[in-house]
Amino acid sequence: MGLRTGEQYLEAIKVRNKAEIYVMGKEVKDVTTHPFLKPSIMAFKATFDAPWEEDTKELARAWSPFINEEVNRFNHIHRSSDDLAAKVKLLRKISHKTGACFQRCVGFDALNTLYIITELMAQKGKTEPKERFVEYLKTVQKKDLALAGAMTDAKGVRTLKPSQQKNKDAYVRVTEVTKDGIYVSGAKANITGVAASEEIVVLPTRAMGPEDQDYAIAFSIPTDTEGIKIIVGRQLNDARRMEGGDIDALPYFYNHEGLVIFDNVFVPMERVFLLRDWQYTSQLVEIFSAYHRQGYGGCKAGLGDVIIGATYNLAKQVGVEKASHIQEKLTEEIFLTETMYAAGIAASLNAVQPCPNCWWVNPMHANVTKHLVARFPAQISQLAIDVAGGIIGTAPSEWDLKNPKLREYIAKYLQGVEGYTAEDRLRMVRLLENVSIGVAFMIESVHGAGSPAAQRIMFSRLYDLNYSEEVAKKLAGMKSNVKFTEKAEPWRESETEKLAKSKSIEEKKQQ
Amino acid sequence: MGLRTGEQYLEAIKVRNKAEIYVMGKEVKDVTTHPFLKPSIMAFKATFDAPWEEDTKELARAWSPFINEEVNRFNHIHRSSDDLAAKVKLLRKISHKTGACFQRCVGFDALNTLYIITELMAQKGKTEPKERFVEYLKTVQKKDLALAGAMTDAKGVRTLKPSQQKNKDAYVRVTEVTKDGIYVSGAKANITGVAASEEIVVLPTRAMGPEDQDYAIAFSIPTDTEGIKIIVGRQLNDARRMEGGDIDALPYFYNHEGLVIFDNVFVPMERVFLLRDWQYTSQLVEIFSAYHRQGYGGCKAGLGDVIIGATYNLAKQVGVEKASHIQEKLTEEIFLTETMYAAGIAASLNAVQPCPNCWWVNPMHANVTKHLVARFPAQISQLAIDVAGGIIGTAPSEWDLKNPKLREYIAKYLQGVEGYTAEDRLRMVRLLENVSIGVAFMIESVHGAGSPAAQRIMFSRLYDLNYSEEVAKKLAGMKSNVKFTEKAEPWRESETEKLAKSKSIEEKKQQ
Amino acid sequence: MGLRTGEQYLEAIKVRNKAEIYVMGKEVKDVTTHPFLKPSIMAFKATFDAPWEEDTKELARAWSPFINEEVNRFNHIHRSSDDLAAKVKLLRKISHKTGACFQRCVGFDALNTLYIITELMAQKGKTEPKERFVEYLKTVQKKDLALAGAMTDAKGVRTLKPSQQKNKDAYVRVTEVTKDGIYVSGAKANITGVAASEEIVVLPTRAMGPEDQDYAIAFSIPTDTEGIKIIVGRQLNDARRMEGGDIDALPYFYNHEGLVIFDNVFVPMERVFLLRDWQYTSQLVEIFSAYHRQGYGGCKAGLGDVIIGATYNLAKQVGVEKASHIQEKLTEEIFLTETMYAAGIAASLNAVQPCPNCWWVNPMHANVTKHLVARFPAQISQLAIDVAGGIIGTAPSEWDLKNPKLREYIAKYLQGVEGYTAEDRLRMVRLLENVSIGVAFMIESVHGAGSPAAQRIMFSRLYDLNYSEEVAKKLAGMKSNVKFTEKAEPWRESETEKLAKSKSIEEKKQQ
Amino acid sequence: MGLRTGEQYLEAIKVRNKAEIYVMGKEVKDVTTHPFLKPSIMAFKATFDAPWEEDTKELARAWSPFINEEVNRFNHIHRSSDDLAAKVKLLRKISHKTGACFQRCVGFDALNTLYIITELMAQKGKTEPKERFVEYLKTVQKKDLALAGAMTDAKGVRTLKPSQQKNKDAYVRVTEVTKDGIYVSGAKANITGVAASEEIVVLPTRAMGPEDQDYAIAFSIPTDTEGIKIIVGRQLNDARRMEGGDIDALPYFYNHEGLVIFDNVFVPMERVFLLRDWQYTSQLVEIFSAYHRQGYGGCKAGLGDVIIGATYNLAKQVGVEKASHIQEKLTEEIFLTETMYAAGIAASLNAVQPCPNCWWVNPMHANVTKHLVARFPAQISQLAIDVAGGIIGTAPSEWDLKNPKLREYIAKYLQGVEGYTAEDRLRMVRLLENVSIGVAFMIESVHGAGSPAAQRIMFSRLYDLNYSEEVAKKLAGMKSNVKFTEKAEPWRESETEKLAKSKSIEEKKQQ
Repeated sequence: MGLRTGEQYLEAIKVRNKAEIYVMGKEVKDVTTHPFLKPSIMAFKATFDAPWEEDTKELARAWSPFINEEVNRFNHIHRSSDDLAAKVKLLRKISHKTGACFQRCVGFDALNTLYIITELMAQKGKTEPKERFVEYLKTVQKKDLALAGAMTDAKGVRTLKPSQQKNKDAYVRVTEVTKDGIYVSGAKANITGVAASEEIVVLPTRAMGPEDQDYAIAFSIPTDTEGIKIIVGRQLNDARRMEGGDIDALPYFYNHEGLVIFDNVFVPMERVFLLRDWQYTSQLVEIFSAYHRQGYGGCKAGLGDVIIGATYNLAKQVGVEKASHIQEKLTEEIFLTETMYAAGIAASLNAVQPCPNCWWVNPMHANVTKHLVARFPAQISQLAIDVAGGIIGTAPSEWDLKNPKLREYIAKYLQGVEGYTAEDRLRMVRLLENVSIGVAFMIESVHGAGSPAAQRIMFSRLYDLNYSEEVAKKLAGMKSNVKFTEKAEPWRESETEKLAKSKSIEEKKQQ
Repeated sequence: MGLRTGEQYLEAIKVRNKAEIYVMGKEVKDVTTHPFLKPSIMAFKATFDAPWEEDTKELARAWSPFINEEVNRFNHIHRSSDDLAAKVKLLRKISHKTGACFQRCVGFDALNTLYIITELMAQKGKTEPKERFVEYLKTVQKKDLALAGAMTDAKGVRTLKPSQQKNKDAYVRVTEVTKDGIYVSGAKANITGVAASEEIVVLPTRAMGPEDQDYAIAFSIPTDTEGIKIIVGRQLNDARRMEGGDIDALPYFYNHEGLVIFDNVFVPMERVFLLRDWQYTSQLVEIFSAYHRQGYGGCKAGLGDVIIGATYNLAKQVGVEKASHIQEKLTEEIFLTETMYAAGIAASLNAVQPCPNCWWVNPMHANVTKHLVARFPAQISQLAIDVAGGIIGTAPSEWDLKNPKLREYIAKYLQGVEGYTAEDRLRMVRLLENVSIGVAFMIESVHGAGSPAAQRIMFSRLYDLNYSEEVAKKLAGMKSNVKFTEKAEPWRESETEKLAKSKSIEEKKQQ
Repeated sequence: MGLRTGEQYLEAIKVRNKAEIYVMGKEVKDVTTHPFLKPSIMAFKATFDAPWEEDTKELARAWSPFINEEVNRFNHIHRSSDDLAAKVKLLRKISHKTGACFQRCVGFDALNTLYIITELMAQKGKTEPKERFVEYLKTVQKKDLALAGAMTDAKGVRTLKPSQQKNKDAYVRVTEVTKDGIYVSGAKANITGVAASEEIVVLPTRAMGPEDQDYAIAFSIPTDTEGIKIIVGRQLNDARRMEGGDIDALPYFYNHEGLVIFDNVFVPMERVFLLRDWQYTSQLVEIFSAYHRQGYGGCKAGLGDVIIGATYNLAKQVGVEKASHIQEKLTEEIFLTETMYAAGIAASLNAVQPCPNCWWVNPMHANVTKHLVARFPAQISQLAIDVAGGIIGTAPSEWDLKNPKLREYIAKYLQGVEGYTAEDRLRMVRLLENVSIGVAFMIESVHGAGSPAAQRIMFSRLYDLNYSEEVAKKLAGMKSNVKFTEKAEPWRESETEKLAKSKSIEEKKQQ
Repeated sequence: MGLRTGEQYLEAIKVRNKAEIYVMGKEVKDVTTHPFLKPSIMAFKATFDAPWEEDTKELARAWSPFINEEVNRFNHIHRSSDDLAAKVKLLRKISHKTGACFQRCVGFDALNTLYIITELMAQKGKTEPKERFVEYLKTVQKKDLALAGAMTDAKGVRTLKPSQQKNKDAYVRVTEVTKDGIYVSGAKANITGVAASEEIVVLPTRAMGPEDQDYAIAFSIPTDTEGIKIIVGRQLNDARRMEGGDIDALPYFYNHEGLVIFDNVFVPMERVFLLRDWQYTSQLVEIFSAYHRQGYGGCKAGLGDVIIGATYNLAKQVGVEKASHIQEKLTEEIFLTETMYAAGIAASLNAVQPCPNCWWVNPMHANVTKHLVARFPAQISQLAIDVAGGIIGTAPSEWDLKNPKLREYIAKYLQGVEGYTAEDRLRMVRLLENVSIGVAFMIESVHGAGSPAAQRIMFSRLYDLNYSEEVAKKLAGMKSNVKFTEKAEPWRESETEKLAKSKSIEEKKQQ
C-alpha cells in the first residue's frame, strides 16, 4: 500500500517519538502537539493528504514499477518528463494549501539522485549499491515513508576541504567500517522538515577528492536512531507560535529546519549507498542540486500566488484595488511568479536522460529556475509590502482584538470597505507578513538548493563560452578554424558528456 | 518540392523586382544588391539555407501532411509541442548564423494563426475560409514561399478605435467587395522583412467590434502587387551600410522593417481569409501574439549568445577575461539569456490545444517570454558595453585602418594581447556595437510582438486573481465559501474556455 | 536647560506612567521595564545621550535663539542648510548606536513644519497660531521634551475624503470648540515611538478642502492625557522579546509604533496650532513629508552601515571575506547605502527657504531620498542574506546554546574560523536577522514618510514637464514659441512659487 | 578679457586649422564646416555662448583671483562649494541647449586637478610645478582657451603595468628630457572633444610606481603641435551626418572623441607640470576622477531632461500621455534623472578641502554620482524606447518625407493627434533615437570618468569597513576593544588623511 493518508502519517509520527529533538533549548516529547512544530507537521501532512484530495489527486499519485502499485509522488522515481512537470505542478498546488514549505522535496530529490548515481555505478560494474538502494526504495514506497534529505554539512572554515579542517567532523564522515555497517559522526545543517520525518537520507554536500574519501558517504537512517540529535532552528516570528493564538502566528502550517548531529551513529550496511566512492560525489551533487532547483519553480510560484491573493485582498479591503499603481504592482507580482514557474516547467519538459530509464531535469533550465527564485521573491514581497501599507509593520496583536476594552476601537479603526471586518484585515495582514517576510520565501528562496553563487558556477560550467566566441568571431569576420556543425544545444550534450566521462575516472581507478 | 535552397530564394527574389520599394527616398531596383537591403536579404536567405546545413538540418525540416512532403519549418503548421520547441531551438541557431533578425517568423506565425482561426470558424459552420486557407497553405509549402506578416497598423490617434479616426485609413480596411475579391486601403507599419518577401500575409492588429467590421480583414497578397508601396525604415547605424566597407557596418547580415502602404489594392477572393468577421479578431490577435512572443525566446537568446561571445572575446583581446568582475558580468549575461530561452521552451512544451490538431503555445509562458525579452536584452547590452570598454563608442573607422598613413598607428595602439590584431579588435568592437545596440536587440525586443504594456494586459487576463484571493482567504482563516477543487492550472483552462466561448458569440450572431 | 541626559529622560518617562498603553492586549504599567517596550525606550534614550557623547556631541547640540540656550537638535528649529545636513549626519550616527529607529524624528519634523506653517499664516495676518506655537516651542526646548509626531489617520475607505467616510472618526477631527479649547476624536495609526514620548504633536495627514475643515487640525498634547489610548503594534520577531534572553531578540534597542486613539480628548486652546484652516493642509503635508523624507537619508544609511558591518563580519567568521563575489556584494551594499545618504545630504545643503529664517529641505532631493529608501534597503537586505548563508533562517536559539547537553555540539558545529566562537556566530546572525529583516528597514523604509506612490506624485508635481518638452522641441527643430530663459532650476522656483500662491488662497478666503 | 563669445571661439578654431585631424580615414581641413565634426564644434561653442545668454549667464561666469577678471566657469579654479554646485547646475543647463556632450569638462577638471596636485607638491617644497601651472592658468583664463583633457592611454595588455608592456608606448611616456623641454610618445584614447580644442592638457591615467616613472607626466600642449595626430572615432549613427540632411542625424549638436597620437612630440619645460613624479600619480588620478564623476550628475541629468521631454511629447503626439502606464514611465524617468542630479549636488555642496583654498568634491558622493550614471541612463533610455513605440526603430528617413511621391503617404500615416504633423513625429523620434541611444548617454555614461569597476574600487577604499564591523560587533554584543569616538564621517577624514600621507612618501624619497 504505497499511499498513506495524512491521518496515518500523523499516527506514525506520534509513534516515532523517541527521536531526540530540541526546540528552543528543550527536548520535545510529541512533535504533533508542540506549538512550535505542529504547523510543520501539518504542512508535511499535506503531502499525504494530496493523493486523496480532488484537486491534487491526479498529480500526487504515480505508478511505481518497483512495487507495481500506486505510490505517493514524493516517493516516486521519475519515469518521464511529464513526471517531472507533474512534480512542479503539484508543488505549486500544495503551496496553496499550506502557504509554507511542506518539506518533503529534499527526500524526494535524494531518492531520485541516488537512483541515478547507483545506476551509473552499476553501469561501471559496481552493482551492489543499486541493489541496496532499490530494496530500500521498495520499502519507502510500500510504507509511504516520510523522508528528510540531509546534505549541507556544518562546513567549518569555508575555504578548506573536509580533510583540511581542524574540526574533523565539520563534514559528516565515516569513522569506522565493520562487516555489518559503518559508524558516522558530524552534523548536517539547515535540514528541512527533519523533525517531521521518519527517515533521513544523507548525501555528501560537495565534490570530494581522494583525500576526502571518508566524507564521501550516502546512506539512510531512521530519524530516531540512537546518537542522532536534532536541534530545531529559530525563524522569523517563531516565538509567536508559543503564544497560543490563532491569528498572529498562522498556527496551521509552517515549516522548520534543523541542525542534525550524528554522534557516532551506526548505519547498517544495507542502508549504505555510497562509501568512499569520492568519484561520484561531483555528479551526485550536481544531480541533486538540479532536481531541487527545478522544484522551486513550483513551490515558490505557489507562495507567490498566496502573496498575490493576499495583496489583492488587502487592496480590496481598503478600496484601492482598481488604482492603476496597485494594478501595476499586482501585474508585476504575477509576471515574476509566472516566470519562476515557466522556468521550472522548462526544466521538467526539456529533461535530460543521463542513463536509460533515468529522467533528470534540464540542468541549465533548473539552475535558471533557482537563480530566478533567489531574486524574484524578494521583489514580490517588496511589492506586497508596498500595497499592504504600513499596517503590515504596525497592526495590533490578536490579543488586543480579543481584549474587550480595545475590541470596539480596533473594530472601528481597522475596518476599511464595508463587508470586511477589522478581524479580516488583521488576518490577511498577518498572512501576508508571515508568508512574504517568512523564512521560506525570503531566506530559503535564496539559499535552498544552493546559494546564488552555486548557480552562477553552474552557469559558467554548463554554458559553452567557446562556442559563442566562435559564433561571434565568424560573424565579425575574424579568422577562425573552428567548425559550427556539432551541437544543437551544446550545453545539453556537454552535460551528458560530462556524466559519461565518469567512466574514465572509474577506469583510471582500476588501473 | 517544399524546400528551396538559399540560392533559389535569391534567384526568386531578384525576379520579384517589380515591387515598389523605397530606401532613403529612392526606389530600389534590385534588393539583392542594394547595400542597404542586401544584408536583410542575406539574413532572410539563412532560413532557406537552414534545411541544408548540417547543424540545423534536422530542426529546419518538418513533414507536412498537407502536401505529403518535407517543408521548411518556417512554412510548417505545428503538429506537436515538439514542433513548437523545434521552432525556438531553430531560431536560436539561425541567430548564430546571422547575428540579426532573419525576419521570417511573422509569416510563419501568421500561417499558424490563420490555421487555428479558420478551423474555429469551420467548427462554427463557416467552412470556406478554412478551405481557402488550406489551398493557400499548400501553395506556400510547395513553392516554399518567403512570407512577411503584416499586423501593426498606422493607428493614428491611439485612444480612438479604427472607425473613430479622422483618417479612415489609419487602420487597413476593405473599401469595396466584389464577387471576385476585395479592395483594401491603409498602411501597415513596422513590417519586418517585407522587402525580402514574396508574399505578405495581412492580419488585423486589434480586437474589433461590429462598428469596426470593415477593418476586420485578413488576406495574403504578393509583395509586388500594384498599389503596394514599401518605404523601408531607418535604423541605428544604417547609413554606414552605404559606405561600402566590410567592417563598420557588418555588411553580411541585417534586417529591416518597412511601412507598407496599400493604395486601393485588389485582393482576389481566394486569398481572403477573414472578411468583416470581427468576432474572431480578439482571438486572432491573442493567438498570433502568443506565437510570436514564444519565438522571441529563441531568436533573442541567440543574439544573446552572439553578444556573450563577443564580450568574452573582447575581454580576451585585452587580457582581462579572468578578472572576477568580468566573469560575473559574463555569467549574468548567460543567466539572462538562458532565462529568456527557458521561458520560450516552456511556452512550447507546455502547449495548449484550442482545437483538435491545433497546437498553440502556452499563452502565459509565451507572454512571460516576451516580457523577459522586453527587459533583459537592454541589461545584456549594458553588461557588454561595460566589458567592452570605452572603445565601443570611440574606435577609429575601418577607413582609418585602411589609410596607409594611419594604419601603423592603429596597429600599434589598438592591439592588446599578442595574437590578436588591431583589425581583430575593430571587427569585434563593431560586431558588438551593431548587435548589442542594434535595432533588433534594443528596440524590436521591446516592441516586437506587442509592447510591454500588451503583455501586462495579458498577465492580468490570463491569471486568475480570484482563485489566488480565495487561497489567501482560506489560509488567513477568513470566511470563504468558494471551493478549491476545480483547476490544476486555472489560467490554462480559463484560456481554453475563453476560446470555447467564441462559440456562443457565433451562435448569438446567428440568432 | 535645553539638554537632558538619557538618564533624566528615563526618570521622566517612568513618571509619565499614567499613560494608557497596551501591548499584546495587556496594559503596561512601566514602559521602561516592560520587555516589549524597553528596547524602544532605550533607543529613544539614545537621542538624549547623543549631546553628551564624544562622537555625536557636536552634531547633537544646537543653539536656540528662542530660549538663548543650547538645545537638543531634535527640538531645534533649523537655522541654516548646515543645520539640515547636521540632522542627516546625526541620524546616521545614532543608527550606529541603536541599530534601530530611535523614533524622535517625527516630533522633530513636526515642530519644524509647524514653525513654517504658522509663520506663513502670520504673514497673511493670522498671527495667533505662531504666538502659541513659539510659546510651546520654548517649553519643549527648555524641558527638552520627548515628542512623538502623529500624522497618519486610520483612513477607512481610501478612495473617500474624511467627510465622505461612513465612520466619521476615520480621520481625527474636532467635535466641539469651546472658549478654552477643543475636543477631538479619531485615531492616528503607525505612530512611531509614541509609548516612549511625553507629548504628541498631531498634524493632519492629507490636503483638505472646505468640506473637510473639521479634520484640518494641528495641536500638541501630553501623551498621558485622559481619553488617549495607545495600542502598541506587533512587529516581526516581537514575541522573542518576551522570552527574556539576550541574543535572539536584541534586547537592547528597538523601536515601536502604535495606534493612538483619541476618545473625546480635550486640547487646551494654547496647544491648538491649526483649527479648520484647511487652506494650509496641503502645504503642511508637503512640508512635513519632505522634512521626514530627507531624514531617511541619514537613519537608513546608518542601518545600512550596521548591515554592511554584520555582513562583513559573518563573511570573516567563515573565512570567505576575500572571495570576489562576497566583495562585490559588500561593495554593492556600500554603493546603495551611500546613495541614500548622498541624496539626503543634497536635500539638506541645497535647501529652500519658503520664508525668512525658515529653512526647508529641497523638496525634489528629499523625495528622491525617500524613494531610494523605499527601494534600496530591500536590496541591501537581500545581499546581506545572500552573504550570511542559510544559517540566518535556521540557526539554533540561544536557549539551545545555554542548554548544557547541547552547548558543546553547537560550539563544535557553528564555529568557523578560529578566534570566533559559536556564540559570536549566533550573535551576529541574530543582529543581521533582526536589523536586515526588521520592521524599520523592511517596512518603515517603504511606508514611513509616505508610501512610494506619494513620492511619485511629488515627482510629477515638482518636475516641470512642459519645460523639458520645450527643450526637446527646440532640439528637434520643431516649432515652438516658448522661450528658455526663465529658470535655472525650474522645480525649485516653482515650489517656492507654489508656496507663495497660498497668499491668494488666503486672500480669496477674506473676500 | 577672460570671456570669449561663441563666435570668437569659432573664429579661433578655424585658424587653428593646421592640426592634423582625420575623420573616417581622411584628413579634415576645416573642422567648423566638416559635416562629421561641425555639430561637435557647435556643442563646444555652447560653452562659450553660456556666459552671454540670459539663463546661464550667472552660472557660467566666475571671478578669477588669478587674473582679477571674470572668466568662463570652464576655466575657473573652484573657490567654494557653491562653485562646485554651480558647475553641476551649469552642465545640466547646457545639456538642454545641445542635447549632447559639450566636451569642455575634461579640460576644466584637468585644470582643477593640476591646481591641487601642484599645490600639494609645493607644500612639500617642490614649488616650480605650481609656478608653471599658475602662469599657464593665467594664459588659459585670459585667452579663454578651449581645452581638451587627455587621460586614458592606449593601455595594451590590461594586466600589465606600463613598463611591463611589450609596446613601450602603450602609455604616453617621456623619451627624452632636455634643458628646454621633454619629448613624449604614445597615444591617448577616447579623448573627448579634442578636435574642437585649442590645447590639450595631458594627465597620467593610473597610479605609477618608481619603475613606471617615465610614464608619470603631466603637461599641456597646443592641439596643432607637430607630431600630434588625431583620429576621430566612429559613433552610433555617425554616417548619417554625411548625408547632408537636417532631421535624421541632428546636424546641430553632437560630440566626438578621438585617438590622439603623440609621435615624438616636444613639450617646452614651462608646460610640464609633472615629470617622473610618480608619487603623485595616485592622488592625481583620484582627484581628477572624482571631479569628473561629480560633473556627470549635471550633464547626464540634462540629457535625461531632454529624453523626458521627448518621451512626453511623443506620447502627446499619439494621444496617450495620460495613460497611467505612460505616466508611470515618465515619473520613473524623472526619478532616475533627479537621483543622478541629487548625488552630483551632494558631491559639490559637501565638498572636501585637501589644501587651503583648494576645493575638491566629496569623493564618496562623486563616485556615487558616476556609478548611478553608469546605471540609470540605460534605464531611462529603455523607458523612453518603450513609450516611443516601434517607430523609433522603423521610421522612414527624411529623404522619404522629401520625396514628392511619398510625402503625402507619410503625412497621412505618421500623423497622430491633429496639430502635430508627420514631420513633427519624425523630428521628435530622431531626437529621441539620437540622444537616448546615442554615444553620450549609452556609452560615455558607462565609461566616461572611469568604468563602473573603477568606482567600485573607490567604494571599498573610501568606505571604512572596519568601522562598520565594530558598530555591528558592539550592537551584537560581541567583545570588541575598538572605540567609537573618532569619526563623524570616517571616509571623509580617511580621504584627507590619505592625501596627507603623501608627505611621508615625499620625505622618504628625500632620505
